[in-house]
Amino acid sequence: MARRTARDLRSENRFEVLHALFELGPSTRQELARHTGLSPATVATIVTEFLSEGVLRVATVENNTGGRPQERLTIDPERGRIVGVDVAETYVDATVYDLELGVLGHGEVALDEHENDPSYVVDGIVRAIEAAVADGGVQQKRILGVGVSMPGHVHPDAGVSVFAPNWDWHDVRIEELLEKVLPVPVYVDNPLKAVVLSEMWFGVGRVVDSMAVVNLGTGVGAGIAIDGSLMRGATNNAGEWGHTLLRLDGRPCRCGRRGCVEAYLGAPGLRTTLAEIDPDHPTLAQSRQRDFVEAVALGLDAGDPALKELALRTSRYLAAALGDLVNLLNIPSVTLTGWTSTALARWLVPAVRAELPDHVMPGSLQGLTVEPSQVPGNAVALGMAAFTLQRFLTRLGLGSPAGTRPRPDPEP
Amino acid sequence: MARRTARDLRSENRFEVLHALFELGPSTRQELARHTGLSPATVATIVTEFLSEGVLRVATVENNTGGRPQERLTIDPERGRIVGVDVAETYVDATVYDLELGVLGHGEVALDEHENDPSYVVDGIVRAIEAAVADGGVQQKRILGVGVSMPGHVHPDAGVSVFAPNWDWHDVRIEELLEKVLPVPVYVDNPLKAVVLSEMWFGVGRVVDSMAVVNLGTGVGAGIAIDGSLMRGATNNAGEWGHTLLRLDGRPCRCGRRGCVEAYLGAPGLRTTLAEIDPDHPTLAQSRQRDFVEAVALGLDAGDPALKELALRTSRYLAAALGDLVNLLNIPSVTLTGWTSTALARWLVPAVRAELPDHVMPGSLQGLTVEPSQVPGNAVALGMAAFTLQRFLTRLGLGSPAGTRPRPDPEP
Repeated sequence: MARRTARDLRSENRFEVLHALFELGPSTRQELARHTGLSPATVATIVTEFLSEGVLRVATVENNTGGRPQERLTIDPERGRIVGVDVAETYVDATVYDLELGVLGHGEVALDEHENDPSYVVDGIVRAIEAAVADGGVQQKRILGVGVSMPGHVHPDAGVSVFAPNWDWHDVRIEELLEKVLPVPVYVDNPLKAVVLSEMWFGVGRVVDSMAVVNLGTGVGAGIAIDGSLMRGATNNAGEWGHTLLRLDGRPCRCGRRGCVEAYLGAPGLRTTLAEIDPDHPTLAQSRQRDFVEAVALGLDAGDPALKELALRTSRYLAAALGDLVNLLNIPSVTLTGWTSTALARWLVPAVRAELPDHVMPGSLQGLTVEPSQVPGNAVALGMAAFTLQRFLTRLGLGSPAGTRPRPDPEP
Repeated sequence: MARRTARDLRSENRFEVLHALFELGPSTRQELARHTGLSPATVATIVTEFLSEGVLRVATVENNTGGRPQERLTIDPERGRIVGVDVAETYVDATVYDLELGVLGHGEVALDEHENDPSYVVDGIVRAIEAAVADGGVQQKRILGVGVSMPGHVHPDAGVSVFAPNWDWHDVRIEELLEKVLPVPVYVDNPLKAVVLSEMWFGVGRVVDSMAVVNLGTGVGAGIAIDGSLMRGATNNAGEWGHTLLRLDGRPCRCGRRGCVEAYLGAPGLRTTLAEIDPDHPTLAQSRQRDFVEAVALGLDAGDPALKELALRTSRYLAAALGDLVNLLNIPSVTLTGWTSTALARWLVPAVRAELPDHVMPGSLQGLTVEPSQVPGNAVALGMAAFTLQRFLTRLGLGSPAGTRPRPDPEP
């Protein structure tokens, strides 16, 4: 069995301290030790490293009566900039963050879902980043790294899009292609991994340490964390809940199988359900997926009966498919994210909650929460920025000798 | 979020050393440190404790040229006896083990599946243990603990059968009932947790550290381990793969939902499938489930065409349901266990392997193994004995001052 090395443990401890600072805000060394469970000596060492690397700064010094002055530490947002990018079938969405992962700027580029050339997608990514950087008034040279979420099966260590069914990509070396045009380190991963990290750091992860984060868009999937660890699987392919069965021999799915959850809950699946209810419904005229889902939301507002039936059937499919996830994993928390969730949460969430007792075993139902994500902004981009920050800190902590950190230039 | 205490960590380290001894056989302190990744000092402390508690003994001393003599340590099988019990709908199966978990004796009692009184089941458990103890020629007073697997939802810390649908039990305090009649500590858990532990210690866990162990019997379920950790879920209810959907609105399941995997792959589900193929098939006359499955195996040997069709359909259902498990968890290994698996493995395993590529995403298929369990004997009983050994060691390590261990009496 694989064993953690001392190096892994050191990285993990650094992330624990960083994560605690995100959760607690400005903190003393004692508070960090208490929150992380690490020894005061370990925390003191990490804080000293982070201070010398410029990742932390002293926010305040408190003079307690009788005791030593207590330094309260905080992440230095000015240490650099990080870009998180959400690449989907139909768009690229880029956000520039400071080192505290506060949003500085945002850019979006539409992708033609019928174009599948890697250079076309790379160009879209670069343009979205440029727009975000311009929007935030950020200097290119201050960017420490770019994290790019790619749909499909991604191998983050190799920087490869192993398989992206929407573009029929096989083993596209996306990190290499991007690093040719972007003069900074690039980290690629999959959106299901990104949404879990964003939820662990900035969402329900503050309350629970096991969860599923269900992403509803063109495709659907679930990011999973168990006992505080992101589940990646043997080949970083865990979470393909969209390709578990809702109904054996049911609707054809774009993966080639029949009856998958995605064939019912992906945006094209919603369109299929509506066509079953009313093949002549005017909303079906919307050819772009996001326009279609937005039109469904508007029509529900207006009380359209066919769309109400669509919401009802979709809620039932969703409750059944979430029931499978909860029965298998006995997780206490399900969070809904992705643009379909955002557009339809008002109708889906109450209906799903009402249906769940029909699908979840009693022993796993008690205390179960199903909530729309509370993570601000684009959760995929935020999660990718958090991964990129982790990778930056790993390289920083292992590579550079103390004292060599660059002085950041102030933004003009 | 929950943090591990120093006490948890100490227990975990003790289990790591114990587990290494099971994997490696007689080992030096250096080998144990290398295998566990623990520091030599930590290993030395644990070995000293185990020696003083009588859990380990020195197997051999090797004199290396020039170096210190090297002690090779081994678990002392004579330190005591442990009983593992598998309670199912239709039988109780008890095994007595030495401290190395070598089998000493075995006893089995049939249960009438229509009797649901707790005292009836407790009596069956006691009789099976008595039979195993007599079979092994073991003195009652040498038994250190009894581990009892109960079907359904079990809360091991409280010792409670929270819900056993087969008996319609709710919150039956089974540990208390058993400790009234058995003069030793009792540990209760669920078979899905037990089969994973047995597989982690004595089966595929020697090669992989993430796995699903699929248990096919009257009910079906999957024990799951990820990165070397048994997945319990929020309420010890993880692994209810039998109550994930194969087909929305499909066959009624005894859980009250429709279309669950168990309704197709549990022994009564196999009977339903056969009745769909040939409602007058003579095998359907077998009223007891195990007799029915044994008769299916015999009929397959004889080339019965309806039974061949049953094996084919069952293999397809199993491949589809395993596909869901693999797509969601991206585990590299699936092990089949339970009495239906044992009886039908020859027909099911090759057919399932042939079907899997239709159900598993390409990125999760490569390197995936599906194998019948290689764990010897009753895997549920063995896993329960392993849990009980862990619990014994925790109590021993935390409770008794050094030097107070009882001298074991030799068996007559």
